[in-house]
Amino acid sequence: MHIDLNADVGESLGQWTLGDDAAIMDQVSSASIACGFHAGDPSTMRQSCATAAAKGVSIGAHPSYRDLTGFGRRFMDIASSELSDELIYQIGALQAIARAEGTTVNYVKPHGALYNAIVHHTAQAEAVVAALSVVELPLLVAPNSEVQRLALAAGLTVVTEAFADRAYNPDGTLVARTQPGAVLHSLEAVVAQSLDIALHQEVTAIDGSRIGVEVQSLCLHGDTPGAVAMAAAVRTALHDSGVTITSFVP
Amino acid sequence: MHIDLNADVGESLGQWTLGDDAAIMDQVSSASIACGFHAGDPSTMRQSCATAAAKGVSIGAHPSYRDLTGFGRRFMDIASSELSDELIYQIGALQAIARAEGTTVNYVKPHGALYNAIVHHTAQAEAVVAALSVVELPLLVAPNSEVQRLALAAGLTVVTEAFADRAYNPDGTLVARTQPGAVLHSLEAVVAQSLDIALHQEVTAIDGSRIGVEVQSLCLHGDTPGAVAMAAAVRTALHDSGVTITSFVP
Amino acid sequence: MHIDLNADVGESLGQWTLGDDAAIMDQVSSASIACGFHAGDPSTMRQSCATAAAKGVSIGAHPSYRDLTGFGRRFMDIASSELSDELIYQIGALQAIARAEGTTVNYVKPHGALYNAIVHHTAQAEAVVAALSVVELPLLVAPNSEVQRLALAAGLTVVTEAFADRAYNPDGTLVARTQPGAVLHSLEAVVAQSLDIALHQEVTAIDGSRIGVEVQSLCLHGDTPGAVAMAAAVRTALHDSGVTITSFVP
Amino acid sequence: MHIDLNADVGESLGQWTLGDDAAIMDQVSSASIACGFHAGDPSTMRQSCATAAAKGVSIGAHPSYRDLTGFGRRFMDIASSELSDELIYQIGALQAIARAEGTTVNYVKPHGALYNAIVHHTAQAEAVVAALSVVELPLLVAPNSEVQRLALAAGLTVVTEAFADRAYNPDGTLVARTQPGAVLHSLEAVVAQSLDIALHQEVTAIDGSRIGVEVQSLCLHGDTPGAVAMAAAVRTALHDSGVTITSFVP
Repeated sequence: MHIDLNADVGESLGQWTLGDDAAIMDQVSSASIACGFHAGDPSTMRQSCATAAAKGVSIGAHPSYRDLTGFGRRFMDIASSELSDELIYQIGALQAIARAEGTTVNYVKPHGALYNAIVHHTAQAEAVVAALSVVELPLLVAPNSEVQRLALAAGLTVVTEAFADRAYNPDGTLVARTQPGAVLHSLEAVVAQSLDIALHQEVTAIDGSRIGVEVQSLCLHGDTPGAVAMAAAVRTALHDSGVTITSFVP
Repeated sequence: MHIDLNADVGESLGQWTLGDDAAIMDQVSSASIACGFHAGDPSTMRQSCATAAAKGVSIGAHPSYRDLTGFGRRFMDIASSELSDELIYQIGALQAIARAEGTTVNYVKPHGALYNAIVHHTAQAEAVVAALSVVELPLLVAPNSEVQRLALAAGLTVVTEAFADRAYNPDGTLVARTQPGAVLHSLEAVVAQSLDIALHQEVTAIDGSRIGVEVQSLCLHGDTPGAVAMAAAVRTALHDSGVTITSFVP
Repeated sequence: MHIDLNADVGESLGQWTLGDDAAIMDQVSSASIACGFHAGDPSTMRQSCATAAAKGVSIGAHPSYRDLTGFGRRFMDIASSELSDELIYQIGALQAIARAEGTTVNYVKPHGALYNAIVHHTAQAEAVVAALSVVELPLLVAPNSEVQRLALAAGLTVVTEAFADRAYNPDGTLVARTQPGAVLHSLEAVVAQSLDIALHQEVTAIDGSRIGVEVQSLCLHGDTPGAVAMAAAVRTALHDSGVTITSFVP
Repeated sequence: MHIDLNADVGESLGQWTLGDDAAIMDQVSSASIACGFHAGDPSTMRQSCATAAAKGVSIGAHPSYRDLTGFGRRFMDIASSELSDELIYQIGALQAIARAEGTTVNYVKPHGALYNAIVHHTAQAEAVVAALSVVELPLLVAPNSEVQRLALAAGLTVVTEAFADRAYNPDGTLVARTQPGAVLHSLEAVVAQSLDIALHQEVTAIDGSRIGVEVQSLCLHGDTPGAVAMAAAVRTALHDSGVTITSFVP
């Protein structure tokens, strides 16, 4: 048994630091690096690539809407063709930065509001698929999403992820952050859900029912207090249960 | 006999249009495309790549200081390592955009105030050389410049250019724009200087003396009134004198 | 009889020019000046203020979502309190620039996608009302809109406008730009609709029915080919029909 | 005896936090709030204004070059008239935000590389003076500077400051940060220098000589580890020595 652990990194900007990239990259197998549109100036991107390379962590591009002030967390009604070009731009920028550190970009995971939009927004999902078709990289997204459907139809490699610390509805969608219980805060609950996903491809939904969650990667958060300790606990528990933690990229 | 003609293109931004890319690309053999830091959103970049590909024009990256408001024409005292990363970022972004149109970036020409700074500013010239060493592309710059010296020492391919419409001092430097006679406005003078450079590798300096100007490319402007007509006149005159206009990229 | 004519101005940015501000300001009584978020660097704003002051045109702030690349024409799902602060920021910036030219800002007209959103989006309309309550200026918006309703409830002065060159549905809404006939292109049709609005507070809707349009201002476009000629024709026709063109600000 | 204590605040941006504004504002009498060009989105600005108002701290505008990525710490060779307009823009934006919190902006302190440039750069110092002449606010700058000279000649109110934690050369200039001993790190040294300035208007220069430092304000840093503790120690020592800490604004 094996699974990928991924986290978002490279989310600093100039004078501003966010998250502890080096510490979180000790725990995960894949690191999604911000590409300058919601976070991550070029030197931050390069440092993240260097750290990932040194630690043997697989690098993903983490492109976003163009929204530094809102950290890419606000939906933008951008036209499909423009969005596609903005994604290619960001991914290509990171690819060149990665080359500067002797490494490569292995996958793409859309960020924030864009990640959420392409679960259902067809035109923006098409933009992601069009961009990925140009850069020819695997796409890391939510399961059962519009973008997954379109990407598979386009012949792209698609990897899906679950969240170690988010509660699930009985239909497999995430409980909205505005609802009580949406985020699992206890280390025990996060570890238990992680093991459930890795070992059984199942989670206990918020109503107590058991639902299937077939994913190849587990997303951990790197920018919250206690994030590194939680990631370490998940990693240890998985390891102790005989699960190999390894990037989904061959 | 042969020479390259180059012009800056892709300098529109979103709703704002600057220059007539398609018309100027009918005249030149190399087009330097803005990469988003002084001009050129990703969709503008892509359109410029498509036009260049369709017309058989060689594509260069035209990176800049991060300065949309000032169009990259203001010196910024940015640290060498940060500048280098910002250049790699821009070049990589254009490379991916070019791939989307089935074409490639063949060279790099720094823009505006950065172009001027690296004639003499060692740390910034080193940043350009470091970036070019990563992307492994030829560098198009001013002759007798600090960046040329450093780039050659680093083993980079360096191509130099002269200006069809700028007056020269006896020492081979450009007459400052603040001086009278700095810019040649008459079509006859521009054509004559272009022929001088292409046929004799010489120009008549502002004091009447003849000086050597050994360059592989001739820079035309694309964003001024009459630019296209002037470019066409230069092209025709060169052709009629037996000079082949061809990109410096093999 | 009297009516206000308004147009958007100050939409250049640095090296990029858009519209002919001086010419359009010869025709209108109110000029809405971009405040830097979708267009308009500070020096462009100042030039627009100087021109308006010289021509006796009333100045409005024309704030927007933060979106230079998209010219403020893309909906952004920004939180109400943040939007409100961004509007106060832009309006205050223009007020200080206006003071530098010895003049003042007399009203606020939201721009682009924000203008459209607040016709129905309650939270964003509330943001506009909150910002206007701080700056204590009249608000220029579409009639029958959520923002009009909320602004009146908050005790703000509200001025509404109609469009000289847009077709109307029988229910008083604008025909969507994606529909045929949405934009009136002939000078005759634009002039006729302008007279209808000014003289009769009515227009002929796209289905031929007559509908009431009670507004205090008529919006003309300044950035399209022929815009100035069209504005001049409307102005002349109104004048010849005995309609005084005058700002709605006392 | 009395002196003003000032610190820079409001240097967060969106998702990124920098400094502990509330804690530092418990110690100082004047807070210079970033205006969006090097740090400080509108909602951060508003929160800083609210905190300052609640604590009775005098608010200053802290405008900068337009350089988020470089935090305004990189010299930009911007034309004087454009710089002036950019300063007016930023100050006006903060003034409106302050009004939203029922308070006002009382002075202006240029930030970072701009602060350093106007010690000697005449054209940029003139830009600052031109902007301040429009907004009619006191200017907080370094003593013996070009901007001080020009501002006084223009009839502006000028307040000067010394640095509690920076070593001085015998000629009264700051020891460059690249030199050893440039920054005082020990709490004792910082407190001693603060008392020296407040009580005697003198400091011991790096060569041991005593030099005069006549200033109305003492600058403390708010964004370094230990900054709040150091500010508190300076405040206590001044108070215990009979020095009243009070804003320079009447």
